[in-house]
Amino acid sequence: MQPPAFARRASQLSPTLPAPAPPENIAFDSGHAFPGVLPDLTAEAATALAQYRAETLQYAPRMGLPALRAWIADYMTADGARVSADNILVTNGAKHALELVCRLLLDEGDGVVMTSPTYFSAIPIIRSFGVSFIEVGQDRAGLDVDQLAAILDRRRKDGKSQPKFIYDVPDFHNPTGVTMSAERRAVLLDVAAAHGVAVVEDSPYRKVRFEGASVPSLKALDERDVVLQLGTFSKLMAPGLRVGWVAAAPPLVARMAQLKSDAGSCPLTQRTILEFCANGRLAQHVARIQDRYRANRDRMVAAVRRELPDVSFVVPHGGYYLWLTFPDGVNADELAACANQIGVTVISGSRFFARADVAHPRNQVRVAFSHADEDEIDEGVRRLAAAYAAVANGSAATALR
Amino acid sequence: MQPPAFARRASQLSPTLPAPAPPENIAFDSGHAFPGVLPDLTAEAATALAQYRAETLQYAPRMGLPALRAWIADYMTADGARVSADNILVTNGAKHALELVCRLLLDEGDGVVMTSPTYFSAIPIIRSFGVSFIEVGQDRAGLDVDQLAAILDRRRKDGKSQPKFIYDVPDFHNPTGVTMSAERRAVLLDVAAAHGVAVVEDSPYRKVRFEGASVPSLKALDERDVVLQLGTFSKLMAPGLRVGWVAAAPPLVARMAQLKSDAGSCPLTQRTILEFCANGRLAQHVARIQDRYRANRDRMVAAVRRELPDVSFVVPHGGYYLWLTFPDGVNADELAACANQIGVTVISGSRFFARADVAHPRNQVRVAFSHADEDEIDEGVRRLAAAYAAVANGSAATALR
Repeated sequence: MQPPAFARRASQLSPTLPAPAPPENIAFDSGHAFPGVLPDLTAEAATALAQYRAETLQYAPRMGLPALRAWIADYMTADGARVSADNILVTNGAKHALELVCRLLLDEGDGVVMTSPTYFSAIPIIRSFGVSFIEVGQDRAGLDVDQLAAILDRRRKDGKSQPKFIYDVPDFHNPTGVTMSAERRAVLLDVAAAHGVAVVEDSPYRKVRFEGASVPSLKALDERDVVLQLGTFSKLMAPGLRVGWVAAAPPLVARMAQLKSDAGSCPLTQRTILEFCANGRLAQHVARIQDRYRANRDRMVAAVRRELPDVSFVVPHGGYYLWLTFPDGVNADELAACANQIGVTVISGSRFFARADVAHPRNQVRVAFSHADEDEIDEGVRRLAAAYAAVANGSAATALR
Repeated sequence: MQPPAFARRASQLSPTLPAPAPPENIAFDSGHAFPGVLPDLTAEAATALAQYRAETLQYAPRMGLPALRAWIADYMTADGARVSADNILVTNGAKHALELVCRLLLDEGDGVVMTSPTYFSAIPIIRSFGVSFIEVGQDRAGLDVDQLAAILDRRRKDGKSQPKFIYDVPDFHNPTGVTMSAERRAVLLDVAAAHGVAVVEDSPYRKVRFEGASVPSLKALDERDVVLQLGTFSKLMAPGLRVGWVAAAPPLVARMAQLKSDAGSCPLTQRTILEFCANGRLAQHVARIQDRYRANRDRMVAAVRRELPDVSFVVPHGGYYLWLTFPDGVNADELAACANQIGVTVISGSRFFARADVAHPRNQVRVAFSHADEDEIDEGVRRLAAAYAAVANGSAATALR
């Protein structure tokens, strides 16, 4: 018996496991945390495993620990959203939350709106449900709501079914770093409500803000219950915890809990997180990561300006990434392959576009400033500049040999 | 905008979240561990969070921690299977492993073979993929392989497509407690291989054996790579850890890793488990749970014989459950509802049958001896006997008021 006979379904999925980069490379590719700001959770875990052992080592409620759901609701309320614990479903990270939203909302053949570009890990998750993507552009104020309205109006006139949801990262967008303006957010929700389309707000970087005032979240502006917000402790505390949530109307949350066939998310990590957050350590920790990532961003911005004067980019006010646009004609796939060989791992912009059947810019690269230290940032940008020089000179093939 | 417009898909799923039982009830319903045997993992977690912080708080490899995959492969090898780390994908528990197997193998309209009865939590997971169930009976030697062969032969003759997989719990079957004989296992694999059907071996209770020699696992007998084995640390260590695995041919494992869109299972719990298992505590712990659950089984067997002489059951050699058959005419749904009111929560046998469109016995109940202590076992069985008396007297409606 051969695997292909078993495994038709798997082949529908686009490859999402690229060959691993050489481990000695400087990693500008990942959303890993800076190692120096990973919190010490030994005391919290000890409390969880001793004082709360009967909770943390048994099955957890499918919805999540009640106390954690309440804490998340309070946290979101402090951020302007009108939610209670009934609006919160705890998940195994935000990707799992997105998958549950897809299971709830999507049928094969449905449409889904994505920004162009968009978060690359969201693409295969959503695509695996057999949907067709509708791409909408963005500028420095975020998603182009006029273009979105025109597309949905046109579909209505043509008698086409509307997409099921609009997926966006409104704060420090991945990969572009753009934060959507308050005005755009209001229009986005009006357009979505008018056409009966849900909005999936994925906002892992919201607290990783270095400067400026925050803009109300989509969920905070959500008078009509059209927003499903995905949250995570990955960027607030540590990626390895694998705890996130989805905040939505209670009937939707109840249905997603039915679709969450995992016997509840891990109560040990939930309780450890709650001990950390409810005892006041979170605010202090967030200030620390803001300082660290601001310094990293500044270092990378300076290095790119110095080493790559041909490259344009918007300085983001938060998040983990710079989105670099190289001169026209540069092939970023080739550039990323060359950089990978030279010793710095970056992700070609081509991976951030949902539709494979239309043309997109080919000259963009995402670089993360989150994981590397300051010397690595300088050295990594130097290597990227060397790769660019090699590609621009047409000598990439040589450099690769 | 109303939830129903968003949520068609959810309505396809059968309800899997029954109303919670009164918290003061004696719980014979759950697969929870006995509280007194939950291990003390504080030292292991402290090591994981201090010594391995850069691993346990960052994203983990999608396949699982390499050292844990190697440990699981060694553990399975010691149990007779010929596997290496390449055969192992770490998952968020065995239910998640089952879901990944379904994503790998199933398309809408496929057939899946289930024993009658079968593990109730597997039913909605598999059903949500839009399959049709084929039920096969079982007796004291396990799944009826002659009936299975006849069904598959008939489908071949009729030109029907064969089911994609056979799902079974061969060791201490849930709910019946039956362990499949070695002879049956060999025939099962022959039949499956002859018809190109995979076998999904779900065996969480394998080490929870109180007496007698173990029978080789299906994976140990799997010369032709037809078996996908689901494993879990829930019954070896603690349910709350939410770490399991699937063991299968490497190409299948690689595809399931692609379908596992969760950025890797939690490295903190993986490393905590590895510290516990690799440092020799597991063997000692398994002996402890065997002793505890043997004593609980014996207590419950004695109580049922004493309080419920009309009830027949097979004494299981391991696992967590007794499967009680009441006299013909007893409606176990009514009995379970009455018992729940009287103060003991049990699960009606009707929930353990995959097909809703054919008749099944209605007079069976599953009772777990894992979670309650010895006094609770006695008292819970007394309450179940009181519920039975009420139902048999036709006074259940009165008792419920």
